[in-house]
Amino acid sequence: MAVNLSRPDPATLYPVAGVELGTAKAEIRKPDRRDLLVIKIAEGATTAGVFTKNRFCAAPVQVCRDHLADASGVRALVVNTGCANAGTGQPGLGDALTSCESLAALMGIETRQVLPFSTGVILERLPMDRLLAGLPTAIADLNADHWSQAGEAIMTTDTLPKAASRRAQLAGAQVTVTGIAKGAGMIRPNMATMLGFVATDAAVDGALLRQWVRDAADASFNRITVDGDTSTNDSFILVASGAGALRITNETDPGAAQLKAMIIEVSRTLAQAIVRDGEGATKFIEVRIEGARTVDEASAIAYAISHSPLVKTAFFASDPNLGRILCAIGYAGIDDLDADAIDLYLGDVHVATAGGRHPQYREEDGQRVMQQSEILVRVVLGRGDASTTVWTCDLSHDYVSINADYRS
Amino acid sequence: MAVNLSRPDPATLYPVAGVELGTAKAEIRKPDRRDLLVIKIAEGATTAGVFTKNRFCAAPVQVCRDHLADASGVRALVVNTGCANAGTGQPGLGDALTSCESLAALMGIETRQVLPFSTGVILERLPMDRLLAGLPTAIADLNADHWSQAGEAIMTTDTLPKAASRRAQLAGAQVTVTGIAKGAGMIRPNMATMLGFVATDAAVDGALLRQWVRDAADASFNRITVDGDTSTNDSFILVASGAGALRITNETDPGAAQLKAMIIEVSRTLAQAIVRDGEGATKFIEVRIEGARTVDEASAIAYAISHSPLVKTAFFASDPNLGRILCAIGYAGIDDLDADAIDLYLGDVHVATAGGRHPQYREEDGQRVMQQSEILVRVVLGRGDASTTVWTCDLSHDYVSINADYRS
Repeated sequence: MAVNLSRPDPATLYPVAGVELGTAKAEIRKPDRRDLLVIKIAEGATTAGVFTKNRFCAAPVQVCRDHLADASGVRALVVNTGCANAGTGQPGLGDALTSCESLAALMGIETRQVLPFSTGVILERLPMDRLLAGLPTAIADLNADHWSQAGEAIMTTDTLPKAASRRAQLAGAQVTVTGIAKGAGMIRPNMATMLGFVATDAAVDGALLRQWVRDAADASFNRITVDGDTSTNDSFILVASGAGALRITNETDPGAAQLKAMIIEVSRTLAQAIVRDGEGATKFIEVRIEGARTVDEASAIAYAISHSPLVKTAFFASDPNLGRILCAIGYAGIDDLDADAIDLYLGDVHVATAGGRHPQYREEDGQRVMQQSEILVRVVLGRGDASTTVWTCDLSHDYVSINADYRS
Repeated sequence: MAVNLSRPDPATLYPVAGVELGTAKAEIRKPDRRDLLVIKIAEGATTAGVFTKNRFCAAPVQVCRDHLADASGVRALVVNTGCANAGTGQPGLGDALTSCESLAALMGIETRQVLPFSTGVILERLPMDRLLAGLPTAIADLNADHWSQAGEAIMTTDTLPKAASRRAQLAGAQVTVTGIAKGAGMIRPNMATMLGFVATDAAVDGALLRQWVRDAADASFNRITVDGDTSTNDSFILVASGAGALRITNETDPGAAQLKAMIIEVSRTLAQAIVRDGEGATKFIEVRIEGARTVDEASAIAYAISHSPLVKTAFFASDPNLGRILCAIGYAGIDDLDADAIDLYLGDVHVATAGGRHPQYREEDGQRVMQQSEILVRVVLGRGDASTTVWTCDLSHDYVSINADYRS
């Protein structure tokens, strides 16, 4: 079902020196599938993260924020799928901490050097006995070449694992950026996607990395939406292991700009992969808003279009019922918006102008674009110079089926 | 498909003295169905309306606002289904005005005494020849007993007409309130539903009626949502014909409070009927938020729950996947919300407290409520005294089918 997305070829996923990954089948929710992931990070690495703004944020997110505030340096991540450990109150917090404690003891590190992540059903407790029993297997499996298996171990309703990797010579040193992500529903990240982990072997100063993780999220995971539901567990983590030769201490260092661009490119590829594999998705849609007064205004309109069930079902049906897009623009909350100044393009077709249909617009042209699997919706507001882009997918029968049957 | 909604029995729809209704089959979009409605209003009546806040508001909405600002008194409404006359620019405005002009000429009144309404597909011009050709038939059909046919003539994807009527003795006079409404998709009114017309035979002062139409909308059409899409055409009109014996000039007059309550009751019944007949609806859901600091805050949470595709598909599946409700509460944008202070009830079942599952909550209790066709979701925030209620429905396969196939 995924739109122009295929299983990542493990051979294209470069290992990142200083980062090893191991998985286990812990039977958190389902038998015989990888559902537990441990990521080991070299001593001296820097790590930064951004997390959901959902007020019901999950227990592991609370623990992550706390541990990342510490100066002791992150040495391991532990991730489970099948249960989100969200809406679990104080007992859930205890479970997240116990996961960290147990992994720390097995690896000979401090509890506060472990970051926990969970994804899956909300309002249910983690099966701690099975999770803890799986840790030794995951540790025994640790290997720098296991990015592909790691991508699989964090899937929920994803139909395909998501992974991306780039390698380049920067400032005379070979640098690698590799990452994985998961997510298919409950996707309207607000500071990151469900789960995304990106690592580089470069050394990056901690404060700079914290800026970069925000910038990378804003250019990738914060610009996608499947169903408008901001998850309780969204987490995006950026690791700079420092095991490679490149060392970056500030933004003007040789190679810094290029490395940041590589990180953004990997993050964006992962974010777009989440949309391509959106629950029930049959179309990949780029919504570009130009000529806005502010980026916030452009965003409001982009998300109004991207969240409209009527727009999304029209894309599913390949039906150029494009008045629905104008309607969504109109209710995006921009009080002084001049509908007559707006131009709407679907791919290369000029659909609407001056408050109505473009005189040259023909239904068959709209139809032709709607039948494509990748569609650009471009709205030119004519109010200013700000712009933004959001990536989304259509709303199909399968979205309803997947979410009506999710727990069964 | 509609949830506990049946075709209104014409015998239960009391005529309103001073108001006559006539319909015609004008073939605006489809053959052999009532799609044109004329409502004739007695001289001396007062009329007030509230309209969509969508910036792409339809041509007839712009004309309505202009004509209602006039002091000459509304004498007729003309309504078509099949084409929304929205996203039609200046030519669309001309079409709306031409409809008024032609009807006015046929009825011997002024153009500015006619209010036009359209509903249906956006971005297409009205077939003016067929619309104008239908007007004499509709006028010949004018009759105070034609509320039922009028309800039919304004349907789009509605599976049933919506009409409601109340009659009472107020201050010694018999008073009637009768109304019709339409709408099934693109329903997240912001100042009114797609189309709602409510009339009383009482005489009500114009300024007071303008206040009442806002209050009635806020208590009814502004509290429903099917898919979160605020239409370009939402209009709600309240007519006080003055043909009856009751005369109200200010809120303290005998019978005023009761009459206002009757108007709200009819409006709310119509609004709820729209949700019951929501596209693909299989469940009618009341979302009640209590203990909020402000009504706006309560509304934000009620709509976050009501718009979440994940919550709506869980209702469709009768799956008590209630973490999705907590998740929606969490992303409603209340920055200082304390998740641990919230209580969630599903019908009579206490589901969540203190940030997690209620200790006595059992899955089978949640399951029992989820299987009902009418479900109350009650959220107690524990932050203040404000509360609100929103009515919505579930998201089913049929919603996708209906909207993927709408124009075909």
